[in-house]
Amino acid sequence: MEIKFKPIGVVHSPLKKKEDIQSSRSTDPQGFDSVQGELEIFKEFEEGLKDIDGFSHLIILFAFHKSEECRLFAHPPYDNKRRGVFATRSPNRPNPIGMTVLKLIQIERNILRVSGIDMFEGTPILDIKPYTPRDQKSDTTFGWLGDKIKQAPKSQ
Amino acid sequence: MEIKFKPIGVVHSPLKKKEDIQSSRSTDPQGFDSVQGELEIFKEFEEGLKDIDGFSHLIILFAFHKSEECRLFAHPPYDNKRRGVFATRSPNRPNPIGMTVLKLIQIERNILRVSGIDMFEGTPILDIKPYTPRDQKSDTTFGWLGDKIKQAPKSQ
Repeated sequence: MEIKFKPIGVVHSPLKKKEDIQSSRSTDPQGFDSVQGELEIFKEFEEGLKDIDGFSHLIILFAFHKSEECRLFAHPPYDNKRRGVFATRSPNRPNPIGMTVLKLIQIERNILRVSGIDMFEGTPILDIKPYTPRDQKSDTTFGWLGDKIKQAPKSQ
Repeated sequence: MEIKFKPIGVVHSPLKKKEDIQSSRSTDPQGFDSVQGELEIFKEFEEGLKDIDGFSHLIILFAFHKSEECRLFAHPPYDNKRRGVFATRSPNRPNPIGMTVLKLIQIERNILRVSGIDMFEGTPILDIKPYTPRDQKSDTTFGWLGDKIKQAPKSQ
């Protein structure tokens, strides 16, 4: 069984190479907050963006188009152990789909100005969803990641 | 350009029909919190689950396998207006990928017991990711949805 998807748009990002993403930013919950860029949604899907203004945050699903291969273990850059891939956000995973929550700054026709970008320039966008109260979990624990992340107030 | 994915597992859920999901639950941020079920990860991917215990919440990406067609507008069941599909969580969208955050109760080999399920029995699972501090946004606004949702403390 195979499931086929097609891009609905493309990410425009100042992040161009691996080191831009695998940096000290990745252990800081606010590490990418200041990274701004644009989501260009293809014209044929523009109507679907109606009513999106008013949501402060959007969930973006995208293809890890630079992903190298499917692995069941990952070596996070800020950790010295290999971890099960489903306990990481590694791009090298059975289905290379990424998910990130971005802050919506402005929308003009088919272009969404956003901040919080942690994707490369040229990343294919698969879906946009509104971030809702059901996505805001509290009483959370973060397993192996818990003592790797910088202690800081919650991400904006 | 087409991107192909294959299921890594399947959802076992008490929700069997449309009415189980499109109910008053959908306007309540805690509406599905008590719905328990299991994520069965296929044996070939079981090793990738290592280190997942310790995370209280998991992000699940799945295929809306009962999705009827691609639409650019949706009529949410609790709203009287049609909305741009990217401002909704409707299953009928250009790429029928769903995303939900579940609470991990227990893991035994390739079976994850979870709560918060809002997917149908038999839903194909595409990916599992840990829910991290970067997914916990504050200072949020919820656009058109804001006055539809029940006012309640944050979802657990």
